[in-house]
Amino acid sequence: MANKETLNIIKIGGNIISNPDKLQDFLNDFAQLKGPKILVHGGGKTASTLLENLGITPKMEQGRRITDAPTLEVVTMVYAGLINKNLVAHLQSKGVNALGLSGADLNCIQAHKRKNTAIDYGFAGDVDQVDHQVLSQLLSQNVCPVFCAITHDKKGQLLNTNADTITAEVAKALCKIYSVQVVYCFEKSGVLRNPEDNNSLIPEINSATYQQLVKARIIVNGMIPKMDNAFSTLKHGVQAVYIANATILKTKSFNGGTKVCL
Amino acid sequence: MANKETLNIIKIGGNIISNPDKLQDFLNDFAQLKGPKILVHGGGKTASTLLENLGITPKMEQGRRITDAPTLEVVTMVYAGLINKNLVAHLQSKGVNALGLSGADLNCIQAHKRKNTAIDYGFAGDVDQVDHQVLSQLLSQNVCPVFCAITHDKKGQLLNTNADTITAEVAKALCKIYSVQVVYCFEKSGVLRNPEDNNSLIPEINSATYQQLVKARIIVNGMIPKMDNAFSTLKHGVQAVYIANATILKTKSFNGGTKVCL
Repeated sequence: MANKETLNIIKIGGNIISNPDKLQDFLNDFAQLKGPKILVHGGGKTASTLLENLGITPKMEQGRRITDAPTLEVVTMVYAGLINKNLVAHLQSKGVNALGLSGADLNCIQAHKRKNTAIDYGFAGDVDQVDHQVLSQLLSQNVCPVFCAITHDKKGQLLNTNADTITAEVAKALCKIYSVQVVYCFEKSGVLRNPEDNNSLIPEINSATYQQLVKARIIVNGMIPKMDNAFSTLKHGVQAVYIANATILKTKSFNGGTKVCL
Repeated sequence: MANKETLNIIKIGGNIISNPDKLQDFLNDFAQLKGPKILVHGGGKTASTLLENLGITPKMEQGRRITDAPTLEVVTMVYAGLINKNLVAHLQSKGVNALGLSGADLNCIQAHKRKNTAIDYGFAGDVDQVDHQVLSQLLSQNVCPVFCAITHDKKGQLLNTNADTITAEVAKALCKIYSVQVVYCFEKSGVLRNPEDNNSLIPEINSATYQQLVKARIIVNGMIPKMDNAFSTLKHGVQAVYIANATILKTKSFNGGTKVCL
């Protein structure tokens, strides 16, 4: 186990993506990271803006998007097109050999349309398998995969999959080969006791304290699936998960955010 | 020369892409093609529709799009996102290991912003180089690259490049390694004497007859850059160029369209 090479999987959310200065700062830091690395990005904010410009009302349920057919078209355009290719072009300009990927490309993430749920999420995809061999081959060729939150069912249907879930599933699959560290980067300094106070950082959360924080309604909404994903990856062999401000990439060994432990 | 493996590069235009039945028919035929192959797609029609839905008037000049900043965003979304990923997902469902690519991905097509022209084409990219090594490596691994008409300048700027030009530049670059055949597929049966009459097919055009056809205004508008690209590729060592209906892929050795010769 100790001999495995370290792989960093970094996820960035929409608030960094839609702020050009913060994005460049983040990409500079990401470009400096040594060794194999993967970037996963969201983009829900940009997608919601385009939906509204097209007269389509974005529909959300418990932090997850309801993806009807026109919404699937819009998220495919925004995630796999606009955001993904701009990130790839910027990374290439910084010397990172980036390759933008959806799950359909090289069939690297296969999913199925979510079913049997109380809420009809539409074209939402739950991941079945990640091809760790094709990804490790790319990484060994010094390629940096840049994942958008679009998958497919191998039957010709694209699906919308939460970017945090993609991060977790890719991390779990690559544990077989690498010692994987995951960093969920966003605009706050980590998981906060008081969402309005950036100084109320919780430096470490384990399974037991997590239950207490949910019960006390300190961890709510979109942070719940993020935390569930974090625990799921750790249980599957991921070495470490951090939820932190994007500037954590500037630190040695990712100090200053929330570290999630079993 | 005779020992080189044959590589087929097929380009499809917007009229096939926006017709679901024709598209499935085309993709079935494409999937059946033996040996290494590359698909290049346009999508201008879909892009123009989205531009109009967003209140942006599409601007064209001599069959080429004027790409201002909002237009670049839209074409990046439509070409690299919506169309590219749907094509990739459909090909994967038909057993083709497709990988969607813009020129930014793996830095496979580097371009520069067009300059010193009478017309300001905006973010239009003229190709500087195609990385034939990275593409031949993918082809040798049985991967089918699917190119959209987006390139980059390696300085972080995406650029809009005509899909026919991308087809030609990729073909020229891969001549070094393969015996390359190019097929420009569209909804008509080939180059026609009378655009209204599908039976007026010109079965073969060479440099001399081309000049006569342009002079006689039989070849006009968007067909001119297409033909110029065809001659340019032949001069650089491409074995054969066909301009034909998409159903030509059903025939042995691409019979039934217009063959372009030097």
